[in-house]
Amino acid sequence: MSNGERNSKLESIQSIIINKQMDGCIISSPVNQFWLCGYIFDGYIYIQPKGPAILFVRRPFNLKDDRAVFLRKPEQIPELLQQMKHPLPSHLMMETDYLSFNATIRLQKALKTDNVVNVSSDLRNLRMIKTSVELAQIKESAEIHTEVYKRIPSLYKKGMTDLELQIEIEREMRLHGSIGIFRSFGENMDIFMGSLLAGDNAQAASPFDYALGGEGISPILPLGANGSILKSGTTIMIDMAGNYRPYMDDMSRTFAIEQAPDIAYFAHEVSIKIHNTIKAFAKPGTSCSDIYNTALEIAKENNLDAYFMGTEQQAKFIGHGVGLEINEPPVFTPRSKETLAVGMAIALEPKFVLPGIGAVGIENTYIINENGLENITLCEEELITLK
Amino acid sequence: MSNGERNSKLESIQSIIINKQMDGCIISSPVNQFWLCGYIFDGYIYIQPKGPAILFVRRPFNLKDDRAVFLRKPEQIPELLQQMKHPLPSHLMMETDYLSFNATIRLQKALKTDNVVNVSSDLRNLRMIKTSVELAQIKESAEIHTEVYKRIPSLYKKGMTDLELQIEIEREMRLHGSIGIFRSFGENMDIFMGSLLAGDNAQAASPFDYALGGEGISPILPLGANGSILKSGTTIMIDMAGNYRPYMDDMSRTFAIEQAPDIAYFAHEVSIKIHNTIKAFAKPGTSCSDIYNTALEIAKENNLDAYFMGTEQQAKFIGHGVGLEINEPPVFTPRSKETLAVGMAIALEPKFVLPGIGAVGIENTYIINENGLENITLCEEELITLK
Repeated sequence: MSNGERNSKLESIQSIIINKQMDGCIISSPVNQFWLCGYIFDGYIYIQPKGPAILFVRRPFNLKDDRAVFLRKPEQIPELLQQMKHPLPSHLMMETDYLSFNATIRLQKALKTDNVVNVSSDLRNLRMIKTSVELAQIKESAEIHTEVYKRIPSLYKKGMTDLELQIEIEREMRLHGSIGIFRSFGENMDIFMGSLLAGDNAQAASPFDYALGGEGISPILPLGANGSILKSGTTIMIDMAGNYRPYMDDMSRTFAIEQAPDIAYFAHEVSIKIHNTIKAFAKPGTSCSDIYNTALEIAKENNLDAYFMGTEQQAKFIGHGVGLEINEPPVFTPRSKETLAVGMAIALEPKFVLPGIGAVGIENTYIINENGLENITLCEEELITLK
Repeated sequence: MSNGERNSKLESIQSIIINKQMDGCIISSPVNQFWLCGYIFDGYIYIQPKGPAILFVRRPFNLKDDRAVFLRKPEQIPELLQQMKHPLPSHLMMETDYLSFNATIRLQKALKTDNVVNVSSDLRNLRMIKTSVELAQIKESAEIHTEVYKRIPSLYKKGMTDLELQIEIEREMRLHGSIGIFRSFGENMDIFMGSLLAGDNAQAASPFDYALGGEGISPILPLGANGSILKSGTTIMIDMAGNYRPYMDDMSRTFAIEQAPDIAYFAHEVSIKIHNTIKAFAKPGTSCSDIYNTALEIAKENNLDAYFMGTEQQAKFIGHGVGLEINEPPVFTPRSKETLAVGMAIALEPKFVLPGIGAVGIENTYIINENGLENITLCEEELITLK
C-alpha cells in the first residue's frame, strides 16, 4: 500500500475521532487491519486524533513495520503509551460489531476508559468507497473468476451430484489462486467458498442470511449443495465468492442440465432485463432502494414475484457491496438509505426460484464510476447448457 | 439427538443457572445451539432454571421443533415471554465470548436485564466431556481422515508445489464428506481446511494462534502453504482438520520428499516417543500441565528444545480438546489447570521445526476412557516417503 493511501485512510478515521469528540480508536479485526495496513497481525492499531498510528503487536514476533510496539497483552498498553508520552484515552472508539463482549470489556478495563463508542459502522462506510488499487484487485479477481466459470461445462459429467460438481469447481478456483476462506460481516454468516444450488434444493430454507439457502450436507452447516444427483430438466445456480485477491468480486451464473423448461429461460431473461434496466438509469446519486424497487417491479410485471429471491423464504435484498467482506455496504433493500457513489463495488443478484426446476438469474459485480455501472464480471450471461 | 441426551444437556445448564443465582440464559452461537439441539438456526435458545427450553427462531421459517416460537427481532422476546406466562429475567447469562459487544448490549436492552454474566466458558467446559454419540462421531471422522491420509502418497507428483498438493488433499477430503469449514474458538483463528507446511515455510511466523504458522499465499490469510515447489530432502507437515462429522478429529502426519536428513528421522521418532510416554502414564486425573512438561522434558533430553513447537516463534502448547470446535478445552500448556477426565477427546501434537528441512512429528486424537488414552487416529506414524 502506498504511503499516500495509508495516510489518507488514517486521516479519514482521525476526522471521525475528532468529529465525535473522542480521544482515540482501537482496531483489531483482520479486515480493518488489512484495509489500513495492507497486512494483518495479532494486536491493536491505536489511532489518536493526530499523528501516526501505533501498532501494538502480539504476533508475529518479527513484524516489520516502524510503527510496531511489541506486547504480550492489552493490559500493557497504558504503560507503553506513558513511555511514549502519549495520553491515556478517556473516550475510546472500538469495533464493537466485530469484537466479542468480553474482548471489548477487557480492552476497556485495560485502557481505563470511561466509555466506548462503536467505530465498526464508520469503518464499513469508509471501506464502501474503494481506492483505485482496491478496485484494480476486484477487477483482477473478477477476470480470474470468469476464467474459472468458463471451465464449468468441462467439469460437468452426466450422473454426478451437485456436491461433486461443486468440489471440482472449488479445486479449479484454488488452482487459480482462490484464498479459500472469505470473510462475511455479521452473525449467522457461515459458508464454505460459495454456494451451488441444483433443482429444488434452491428452495430449502437456511438459517443463514444469504440470498438463497440450500440444505447442505451436514446439520452443522445447513447451506448449499446437498448431494443430490443432477437431473435433466433442472437448473443449477452457481454463486461462488471470487476471492483470488484480498478484495473480492461476486458472480452467479445459471446452468441447465440438458434442457430446462421454457419458464426457466423466460425467468432467466427477466433477471438479465433487470440488470439492463438498472444499468440504464443507475448512476452516482441513485438511491439503492430505487434499484431494489425497480427489480421487484419488473418481477411483478412478469408475474414472477412469487419466485423472486426465493419462494417460501424470500430474501429481502437483491444486492450488496463487495470488498474485503462479501457483504459490505451499500445493501439493496426496499428501505436502503444509501445512494450510489463513485468508487463503490456492488454485486446485484436478482434471482428466481422455480419449483420443480431450480434457481435462475445472474449476479454481476459492478464498479460505480462517473458514468454509472461498469460490469466487471464479463462472462456469458445466458443460461448455459451442460451435457 | 435422543431426548435423554437433550434433557441431560439442558439440566447441566440449568444447574449452572441455579448455582450462579441467575434467572435465565440465552444461547445463539452455532456450536452451542448444535450441542444442545442437534441443529442450528438463526435465533435464541432461552433456558430458565426449570422447564423446557424455548427456541426463539428467526430463520428458517419452517423449523420443525415443538419448542419453536417465531419472531423477527429480539425486542419481541419480553412480549412473547409474557404471553407464555414466563417472567422476564433480571440476571441473564449470555455467550459473551462469542457474541459481539453490540449484539450483547442489544439483547440486554431487549430483555431489560440488569446484568449479564458469561455462560460461554461454562458451556465450553460442559462440551469438553463428550457423550457416547459425540465420541462415535469423532471416531468415524478419524476413520475417514485416515483413509484420506493413506491416499496422500498417490496424490504427490514430483515438481508440484506445496499448494498443489494441498489442493489435491482438500479435494480428496471433500469427496470423502468433509464439510469444508470448521469452527475455531477465539479471535485471530482464521484458517482454511487445515495446514500443509513444507520445508522452511514451517518456520514462518503467523499472526494466528495455531501450533505452527506458514506464510500463506495472500497477505489476507498469512498461514499455511506458500506456493513453493516441494524439494527433495525436505519434510512436509500435513495437519488438516478431520471435519467429516459435526464432531471432529485432528491429525498430523509428516512426509519426506524422497529422503530426509537423519536428524529429521531422529526428531520424528522423539515425537512418537513423547506420544508413547504420555500414553503409558496418562489416565483420568492426570494433570494437563504434567503432560506438557513431560513432552518438553523429552525434547530437552534429546537436545531438541530449540526446535520444539517452532524455532523463533514457539507455540506454548502441545495439544487441545477437539469436538465441535477444533480448539476446545482442555489445553496442554505448562500452566494448564485442567486434568484428564473420561469422555474427553484430545489432540496431542508435539512437533519439531528443523531449519533447512521442515517440520516433523505426529498429531493423534485420543479419547480418554477409564484405562487412559485410546488412540483413534490409527494411521501410519513413521515418516512417510513421497516419490
